[in-house]
Amino acid sequence: MKAVDIVTICLQGEMLKNLKRTGWALAGVQDSNDETVASHAWGTAHISLLLVECLKNGGKEVDLARVLTMAIVHDLPEALISDIPKTALQLGGESMKRGKQDAERKALDIMMKPLGMTGIRIQSIWEEFNTSDGIEAQIVRASDTFDMLVHALAMERNGVSPKILHPFFVSSQSTIDSVSMPILDDIYKVLLKEHEANAQRMGINLDS
Amino acid sequence: MKAVDIVTICLQGEMLKNLKRTGWALAGVQDSNDETVASHAWGTAHISLLLVECLKNGGKEVDLARVLTMAIVHDLPEALISDIPKTALQLGGESMKRGKQDAERKALDIMMKPLGMTGIRIQSIWEEFNTSDGIEAQIVRASDTFDMLVHALAMERNGVSPKILHPFFVSSQSTIDSVSMPILDDIYKVLLKEHEANAQRMGINLDS
Amino acid sequence: MKAVDIVTICLQGEMLKNLKRTGWALAGVQDSNDETVASHAWGTAHISLLLVECLKNGGKEVDLARVLTMAIVHDLPEALISDIPKTALQLGGESMKRGKQDAERKALDIMMKPLGMTGIRIQSIWEEFNTSDGIEAQIVRASDTFDMLVHALAMERNGVSPKILHPFFVSSQSTIDSVSMPILDDIYKVLLKEHEANAQRMGINLDS
Amino acid sequence: MKAVDIVTICLQGEMLKNLKRTGWALAGVQDSNDETVASHAWGTAHISLLLVECLKNGGKEVDLARVLTMAIVHDLPEALISDIPKTALQLGGESMKRGKQDAERKALDIMMKPLGMTGIRIQSIWEEFNTSDGIEAQIVRASDTFDMLVHALAMERNGVSPKILHPFFVSSQSTIDSVSMPILDDIYKVLLKEHEANAQRMGINLDS
Amino acid sequence: MKAVDIVTICLQGEMLKNLKRTGWALAGVQDSNDETVASHAWGTAHISLLLVECLKNGGKEVDLARVLTMAIVHDLPEALISDIPKTALQLGGESMKRGKQDAERKALDIMMKPLGMTGIRIQSIWEEFNTSDGIEAQIVRASDTFDMLVHALAMERNGVSPKILHPFFVSSQSTIDSVSMPILDDIYKVLLKEHEANAQRMGINLDS
Amino acid sequence: MKAVDIVTICLQGEMLKNLKRTGWALAGVQDSNDETVASHAWGTAHISLLLVECLKNGGKEVDLARVLTMAIVHDLPEALISDIPKTALQLGGESMKRGKQDAERKALDIMMKPLGMTGIRIQSIWEEFNTSDGIEAQIVRASDTFDMLVHALAMERNGVSPKILHPFFVSSQSTIDSVSMPILDDIYKVLLKEHEANAQRMGINLDS
Repeated sequence: MKAVDIVTICLQGEMLKNLKRTGWALAGVQDSNDETVASHAWGTAHISLLLVECLKNGGKEVDLARVLTMAIVHDLPEALISDIPKTALQLGGESMKRGKQDAERKALDIMMKPLGMTGIRIQSIWEEFNTSDGIEAQIVRASDTFDMLVHALAMERNGVSPKILHPFFVSSQSTIDSVSMPILDDIYKVLLKEHEANAQRMGINLDS
Repeated sequence: MKAVDIVTICLQGEMLKNLKRTGWALAGVQDSNDETVASHAWGTAHISLLLVECLKNGGKEVDLARVLTMAIVHDLPEALISDIPKTALQLGGESMKRGKQDAERKALDIMMKPLGMTGIRIQSIWEEFNTSDGIEAQIVRASDTFDMLVHALAMERNGVSPKILHPFFVSSQSTIDSVSMPILDDIYKVLLKEHEANAQRMGINLDS
Repeated sequence: MKAVDIVTICLQGEMLKNLKRTGWALAGVQDSNDETVASHAWGTAHISLLLVECLKNGGKEVDLARVLTMAIVHDLPEALISDIPKTALQLGGESMKRGKQDAERKALDIMMKPLGMTGIRIQSIWEEFNTSDGIEAQIVRASDTFDMLVHALAMERNGVSPKILHPFFVSSQSTIDSVSMPILDDIYKVLLKEHEANAQRMGINLDS
Repeated sequence: MKAVDIVTICLQGEMLKNLKRTGWALAGVQDSNDETVASHAWGTAHISLLLVECLKNGGKEVDLARVLTMAIVHDLPEALISDIPKTALQLGGESMKRGKQDAERKALDIMMKPLGMTGIRIQSIWEEFNTSDGIEAQIVRASDTFDMLVHALAMERNGVSPKILHPFFVSSQSTIDSVSMPILDDIYKVLLKEHEANAQRMGINLDS
Repeated sequence: MKAVDIVTICLQGEMLKNLKRTGWALAGVQDSNDETVASHAWGTAHISLLLVECLKNGGKEVDLARVLTMAIVHDLPEALISDIPKTALQLGGESMKRGKQDAERKALDIMMKPLGMTGIRIQSIWEEFNTSDGIEAQIVRASDTFDMLVHALAMERNGVSPKILHPFFVSSQSTIDSVSMPILDDIYKVLLKEHEANAQRMGINLDS
Repeated sequence: MKAVDIVTICLQGEMLKNLKRTGWALAGVQDSNDETVASHAWGTAHISLLLVECLKNGGKEVDLARVLTMAIVHDLPEALISDIPKTALQLGGESMKRGKQDAERKALDIMMKPLGMTGIRIQSIWEEFNTSDGIEAQIVRASDTFDMLVHALAMERNGVSPKILHPFFVSSQSTIDSVSMPILDDIYKVLLKEHEANAQRMGINLDS
């Protein structure tokens, strides 16, 4: 791994500081522009760190280095292919899912190739994030979701209607439920409670 | 087509006023945020209008209403699935191409269904944009490309390096070459000339 | 019409992608910056298309190409003189109205002159938008208004107070009433209803 | 002058913090959005303060309180009618000039009426800015111009082409020349010199 | 004071047009980006002007030129050291307070040195703003606070929750109370009343 | 560590997604707004990961989990006190340095207290970042610097003058030199080389 290759990959990482998360704009949020993919990746790593601590305090064994690496690299391919939103996956069906995975894999391959063994290690951790049911991947996927909901709450405090943000809370439930860690349920409940309180105060019926 | 359905589709159109074109950010452009999909769709329609006039002056028969409708609706599915960039298509291969088309078709279907016959007409024109070799589709696809290059020149005047914008000029050539209308070549040459002059003045070698 | 003239006019069109609509800022809206004149022109063309379809379904004869051209070019002079808001016209009286028209006409003249016959055609359609009572001009003027109200609703979902947006709904009524097409009244009612519901939920008295 | 009237006028002043200067966007500048009318009014007041000091050091008598008041209120009417750019005045001819003045006067009248005697004093100082050849008005008009050129230089350091900013330097010369204060010429020369150096380094011919 | 020194200080002033006020972001406000330090300095000068008029009408003697100069230069050192927020001062204790003052003094010293006697005069007025109990300094400090609260109200109209803005209203009371001018209390009450009404309409309990 | 405490700390982390890095604005960069503290923290973690890999490949022992945790939390106190720039530290002298440290320590203390043992662990790692000469702290401090320079290069590609960014390259050298790891020198040289090439192409003399 030569210095010039490290700089190249870092300059590609700059795209993530610049790329906005698309889901918010599609939901009709106007000031979403503040959340870049890089900001979200930091948020995910930050929450992951706290979750690992929680589990360790509870006596579980978790590989923290693996978790944080995963959080930091989990959106790296977006530097080449952008943030393709959930709606595109839902509407595009199986080919879209495969197509997106192929594109992400190839993008990461292009970025990682010059890094030799390091590149291979990062690719393998990225695969783990996407496919594994190990505790590390579960933690990062949950953090990925929680960071989204925390940002949604931050936007509600800035006036964004809980109505247009509600689908994010609804679709998150299955991600959280798929992992059997009580702390995740507790966090989800705290987030949902503030969201529902915001809606109620404004006379918004979230179920209609 | 009821009033409430028209309002619904217009509120979906609002997403396009809010959604940034992703290609610029992936190229490393920082102030790309100013170009929304809706702005680009207007630019495409505007250029299409001028091209039709050119061809009509030259004695060709073109259906202007069809061309403008096509330009206006050509990015409509992005209101549900966002602007998936070229790089994603190149890296994602065949499944990605099919997946994107499936997603766009389904998105448009969802949006257009409540509009009845009108919806069907719009869907058919959108299909024409994507697949036809008729003169109307060729004009709109060329305008789609030209609007991108015109925006690139506008960004070069604001300091964005011709180096990072060069790939847009290179990849455009095949779109323009695929249509045999001399006016298109002439316009491409004018755009390319300013781009190359910008590079030269700054001591940038575009070919390295 | 030479290639270089087409590129020149397109680069002038780029200003519209960059120019924010001023009315929102004057009303006290902070995140209005997202709506550019070009985005609004697209929105107007999009709504015009739907209205023409409605009327055609109802058996009316409308020249769609004319309507769409009108929507696309209706704000073109703003590339040279900017978006002078309604309040300036109301406060500036007759001289302001004439002055603005003179400025717009001259701006369009400068932009269109190099386009020869095409320029003359576009100027004539722009005049029609501003002065005609023909069905095409009426449709585009109504769409111009509706696109503004749709954007207002999109901003209300992002927290902007219905109170400061109310004047836009009030002043729109006369534009809509001046045209006797039932579909326009229906659309206005749908828009107004959501606006009033937003106000009511927040305990805002729109009439005080 | 009651507290509630002061708050009302201050809330109107908030519009100026939000309103972008239109001239830059019309010139094709993309990141102009950072300069609000309020920011510019501060810059004008700041430069005015320095110019008064210069003249006082040179033995001239100038009413500093009058100069600063003038700089602070000189764009106040834009809170109701926005920043109508020079191009609009040039293209709109005599009616536009009168219309703009009428609109500004009426806007200020509406804003100032509740302030009683204070309002009348502010209106009179605003008139002085627009019409007087007294030294105070000359200083503020020169500062208004200099603040624009200083911002242009700041934008050139951010990559904006000296070519598209050149018209601002050209049109400023007459404002500066109309006042016979040597310090103004000296400042103009310093600004112009950096502008020309920026152009030359980039191989830009400003005269073509 | 040479022309080149005036230009240098003005280019430093450009930083204030670019620098956002940090307090809002720390409070969780997302669209705070619109308020630059320069915009706030203008707002402070504008309110100061009105307060001086009030007091003069009430028969008090105030040096208007001194007040306006103070308002215009009060944030000048931020061009070199940025807007260090109140929270940093509260958490950093005595060393932070001294450190900030030292940094500001030195920054102003660097900026003002080339201006000779003028620089010394500006430094002395800046000191007065920070330390004096004279009526001029009291007016500008009150205006500094009021401009912040007026901006808070403007943001509440854009949807920002009164809850996250409440601390600004609470912490302002002591600044206002420390000056015994009835007009200040009256203005504070008007601002607070709208703030509380905004909270109440949204079902927000400000005291919890 | 209860769920509600985790959510609280995550909502505080949201401030970092919103807070812009101040150094760029003070240097006169206008589009700096795109880089938030959170984005920078991600960049730092990303570079740290690559550096650890480099060193491990070279046979060194480094605690990756510790490095990544340090990178993720190194700017956490800025959520309460903002990004106080280097210039403020240089100008504010010893009291400023101590004041800033006191403020950061207390801010972190407030944020971490509810997290119990986890909070204490994070505080200890944060202290290590600020004071230790261990290899982990050295890596993160170097990455903190490199991420800044990488962003500077990304901005140069968008037109920002190498002249105004040069001080960042100059001041970085000592940070890099203070660590004796050859890979750091190599990376610095690659970054500096592109920076100098950018300057040379534009005819800018970096040393004047």
